[in-house]
Amino acid sequence: MFVNRIPPVEVLSEEALGILDGGWRRLVREIGVEFLHPKALAILERAGQRVEGETVYFDPDWVAEQVSHAPTEFTLHARNPERDVVLGGRNMVFVPVQGPPFVRRGDTRRVAGIADFEDFCRIAQEVDELDSAGGLPCEPSDIPVDSRHLDSVRALLTLTDKPFQGSQSSGIAAADSLVLGEIVFGGEMLATKACMYTNVNANSPLRWDDRMLDSLLIYADAGQAVVLTPFLLMGAMSPVSLPATLAQQLAETLVGIALVQAVRPGCPVVMGGFLSATDMQSGAPSFGGPESLMGLLASGQLARRWRLPWRSGGGALTSSPAVDAQAAYEGTATMSAAFMAGANLVLHTAGWLESGLVASFEKAVVDLDILRTLRGGFAPLEVDEESLAFDAHLEVGHGGHFFGAAHTMERFRDCFQRPLLATTQNFEAWEEAGSPDATARAGRIWRELVDRAEPPPLDEDVRAEIDVFVERRTIELTGRPPEPRAPRERVAGAEPVALGGRERRRRRVR
Amino acid sequence: MFVNRIPPVEVLSEEALGILDGGWRRLVREIGVEFLHPKALAILERAGQRVEGETVYFDPDWVAEQVSHAPTEFTLHARNPERDVVLGGRNMVFVPVQGPPFVRRGDTRRVAGIADFEDFCRIAQEVDELDSAGGLPCEPSDIPVDSRHLDSVRALLTLTDKPFQGSQSSGIAAADSLVLGEIVFGGEMLATKACMYTNVNANSPLRWDDRMLDSLLIYADAGQAVVLTPFLLMGAMSPVSLPATLAQQLAETLVGIALVQAVRPGCPVVMGGFLSATDMQSGAPSFGGPESLMGLLASGQLARRWRLPWRSGGGALTSSPAVDAQAAYEGTATMSAAFMAGANLVLHTAGWLESGLVASFEKAVVDLDILRTLRGGFAPLEVDEESLAFDAHLEVGHGGHFFGAAHTMERFRDCFQRPLLATTQNFEAWEEAGSPDATARAGRIWRELVDRAEPPPLDEDVRAEIDVFVERRTIELTGRPPEPRAPRERVAGAEPVALGGRERRRRRVR
Repeated sequence: MFVNRIPPVEVLSEEALGILDGGWRRLVREIGVEFLHPKALAILERAGQRVEGETVYFDPDWVAEQVSHAPTEFTLHARNPERDVVLGGRNMVFVPVQGPPFVRRGDTRRVAGIADFEDFCRIAQEVDELDSAGGLPCEPSDIPVDSRHLDSVRALLTLTDKPFQGSQSSGIAAADSLVLGEIVFGGEMLATKACMYTNVNANSPLRWDDRMLDSLLIYADAGQAVVLTPFLLMGAMSPVSLPATLAQQLAETLVGIALVQAVRPGCPVVMGGFLSATDMQSGAPSFGGPESLMGLLASGQLARRWRLPWRSGGGALTSSPAVDAQAAYEGTATMSAAFMAGANLVLHTAGWLESGLVASFEKAVVDLDILRTLRGGFAPLEVDEESLAFDAHLEVGHGGHFFGAAHTMERFRDCFQRPLLATTQNFEAWEEAGSPDATARAGRIWRELVDRAEPPPLDEDVRAEIDVFVERRTIELTGRPPEPRAPRERVAGAEPVALGGRERRRRRVR
Repeated sequence: MFVNRIPPVEVLSEEALGILDGGWRRLVREIGVEFLHPKALAILERAGQRVEGETVYFDPDWVAEQVSHAPTEFTLHARNPERDVVLGGRNMVFVPVQGPPFVRRGDTRRVAGIADFEDFCRIAQEVDELDSAGGLPCEPSDIPVDSRHLDSVRALLTLTDKPFQGSQSSGIAAADSLVLGEIVFGGEMLATKACMYTNVNANSPLRWDDRMLDSLLIYADAGQAVVLTPFLLMGAMSPVSLPATLAQQLAETLVGIALVQAVRPGCPVVMGGFLSATDMQSGAPSFGGPESLMGLLASGQLARRWRLPWRSGGGALTSSPAVDAQAAYEGTATMSAAFMAGANLVLHTAGWLESGLVASFEKAVVDLDILRTLRGGFAPLEVDEESLAFDAHLEVGHGGHFFGAAHTMERFRDCFQRPLLATTQNFEAWEEAGSPDATARAGRIWRELVDRAEPPPLDEDVRAEIDVFVERRTIELTGRPPEPRAPRERVAGAEPVALGGRERRRRRVR
C-alpha cells in the first residue's frame, strides 16, 4: 500500500473554511435533503430530525455529532491478508475505472461484457500498484441484469485476492454480496471487520434515492465500509460556482454519513467526492480542467478537517474519445491533483476514457505508467552523507561522465524507476520498429498482462460454495441457470508478443 | 504575468538541507570547479580564491557572501512595457522550447530553419500564456552559423514585443545581442535595467567552459540577467543519486552566480536547474519520470532558501518521439511539478519533443492546453457568501438540474475556463468529424495561430537600424550579405481552416 509522504496542499483559508461550513449547514437546515426511502426517513425522524414528506431538515450539530462517530481510518480486509489496506491518514488506495458500459480494445469499441470485466480483474491482480479491482471495472452487459452482480462478485473474489467492492446496484445485490463475502471471509470476520466496501452516489442536488439507500442501509447494518459520493458536474447537478459545489458536496456526504452512523455507530465510511465541470455549450461533462483540480485540492482539505478517509474524484479522468495526448494530460492533471490533495481512495485510476463511458485497456496501461511516476515522485527523498556520493565526484572530477564510475556500476540496475510504457528510444530505432506510439505499445503490454495472469489460490471448497450460490441465486432471480461460459480466451492468442529479455524486464509490473 | 498562489511543496527537512549544504561546500572547496577562461580565473583569483591551473578551489563562505548580493527578484523589461515580467517571488514566466535542431510539423520531421524559428516567435507573441519566445525556439540551421544569432535576435525583437533571451552561442553573439538591445531600448535603459536575459549551462560535472564564460562575462558586465543552469542527467553528468546531484547543482550554479557578482555586484541572476535521469540500459536521457519530479520539488525548495529567482528544469519535457499519450503525461508531470515547486522561470513550456531534439508545433498546442489548465488550477479560490449561490439552490431544490437556473444563465459564458485543444465531443459526433485525435486537432490550431499573427508595432527607424546592423555584421562575420529571404508563407495557405463560430470561440487563445 502506498503512503504519500508529500504534505498535502492547503488551498482554503480559515475564513474560507468557515464560509463553507456555514454553507452546508444552511443547506441541510433550510432546504433539507430528500431521502426517497421510508426506512431512512424513519431512522432520521426517530433521531430527532424534522421530516416533511420525503425531505429531512437537519440540525447541523446533530449531523456533525454523528459524523464524529466514524473512524478516522480503518482496515479494509482482503481475502489474502497480505492485500489488506488501511483507508485514511497518508495512505492511498488505487482502484481501476468503474462503471463504463463500453470497452475499447485497440480500435474496437463495443458494449462491455463479462470477459472484459474479468480481464480487468486480471490486470488489477497482476499489477502491484492497483490495490483492488473495485466492483465494476465495466458493465458485464452480456449477463442478465438481475443476476449480473453474482457473476461480478464471483469474478472479483476468484480472479483477485485483493479487497473488493460489494454491488450497490440494488438491495438484493447488496445482500447477495454480503453472502458471498461471508462464504469467503466467514461469518464472524464479516460481522466484526470491514471485508468489503461499497460506493453509493447521491442523486444530486440534495437527494438520496431509494436504490442507493437500499444498499447503504444494508451495508451499514452489516458494518461494511460505505463510500458516500455526491456526483457533481457543476452546472448540471450543482451551481456553476466551486464554493457552492463544495458546500453542497459537504451537505450531501455528511448527511449520508450521519445516516450510516445512526444505523450503526462507528461503521467505517469514506467521505466521497466527484466534482467536475460541464461544457456549458453542449452540456457534456468536462474532465481534467482547472475547476477539477481546484475542486480536488479543496475537497481533500475539507475531508482532513472532518478527520475522515477521503475518496477523490479522480483518478485519471478525461473527456477524450481517444487514447491520445488529451486523454493523457487530462488524466495526469487529475491524478496528480489527487496526490497533491492527499486522497486516500482513488477510483478510476486506470482505464477511464470518454467521460467514463468507456473502459479502455490501452488507457489503463497509460494510466498505470502515470501512477507509477507519481508514486515514485511523491516518495520520501533520503538524504544522508552516503547519498552525496562524494567518492564518485573524486573519481570523475571535472567535465567527465559518471557512466563508468564505481558508484554507478554498483547501482545502475535499480537506481532509477523503470517505466512501464514510456520509451527513451531514439527516433531512428523507433521508426525502424514501425513508429509505435504509446497507445500501440500499451496494447502489447495489457495483452501480456492479461495472458500471463492466473487466478490466485483459493480453497476448493470455498470456490465450490461460491459457484453453488451463484447458480442457485441466478435461477431464483432470473428463472434460468447461468449461461454456459466459453473457455477463457488468451487475448494474444496464437500470436505471442515476441519480447527480448531487456524488453521483458522493462515491462515487468511491480 | 501569472502568480502562483498555491504554497510550494517542501520536501527537504532541515537536516536534509544541512547535509546538502555541506555537500556543495565540500565540492567547491575540495574538488573545486574548472573555469576554462583566463579572465574568469583572474577575477576569481583576485577575489581571493585559490586557483591551480584551471581549477578554482573556493571558500564556500565567500561564495555565499557573493550570492547574497544578487537580487531576490527583478524586473525583466520588454520593448513593450506592458510585457515586462518580474522574476522571483510567486511569479511564473513561461517560455517555449529552446534549442532543438529539428522541427516537427504534423508528420514532417526535418532540420529546423529560420522560418520555423519565426513561426515559434509568432505563436509566443499570439499566446498570452507565453511571456517570451526565449532566444532559440529551434536552431535556424539554414542561416550560416557565424551570423545565425543576428537573424535570431532580429526575429525575437521584431516578431514579438515580449522579453527576449540574448544569444549565448559565443562572445561575439553576446556582444551583438547587446548592440541590438541598445538599438531597441536605448543606451541609458540598457545600462541600468535588465532588458534581456541569457542562459548559460555548466559543462557538468564541475566545469564552466570558455564559450559559456565568454557570454557570462559579457552579459554580467552589461548588468543583464544571467540564468546559470547546470544541465544534469543523472548517471551521465552527475552521480546516480538525487542528493548528490542536488549538491552538485548547487555547487555549479552558486560558483557561477558568485562569479557574476564579482564582475558586477547586484547583477540580476536566476538560479537554474535542469535535472533528469538517464535510461541506464541505453544511456539515453529520460524525462518525466519520478526522479525528475523529486528533483524539481527539491530544487525549488533550495532556491527559496537562497532567496533567488529559480529556473526549473521543466517545462513539458518528454522522451517520446511522437506527440502521443507518453509525450502528454511526461510533459504534464514535469510541468505540474514546476508549479508545485514554485518555479519562477520555465523554459521548454511548449513544443519540447524527443528529449529536446525536436521542436514540435503540435506538441506546443498540447503543452499550452496543459499550461492553461495548471494556471487555472493553481489560482486562488475566492470563497465568499455570494459564491455559495444559495439562491440557485432555493430555485432548483432537490434532484433537479442547474442548467436553467438564473444563477447559471447569468454566468454560463465564462464560469469555466475553455480549453484550447481538449474536446468534450461525444463519440458519435467525433467519429463523424473523422475521429481527429488531439494531435490532429493541434495541427489545425497552431496553423491558425501562426497565420493570424502580425508583427507588433515597432518604430520604423528602429526597425531600419536593426536591419542595417544585421546586414553589416553579417557581411563582417561571413564575408557575404544575408541571403535574400522568401516572402512569408502562410502555413494554412490556400486551404483555410473552416471553423464555425463556436469552434472559433473555443480556439481563441487568451
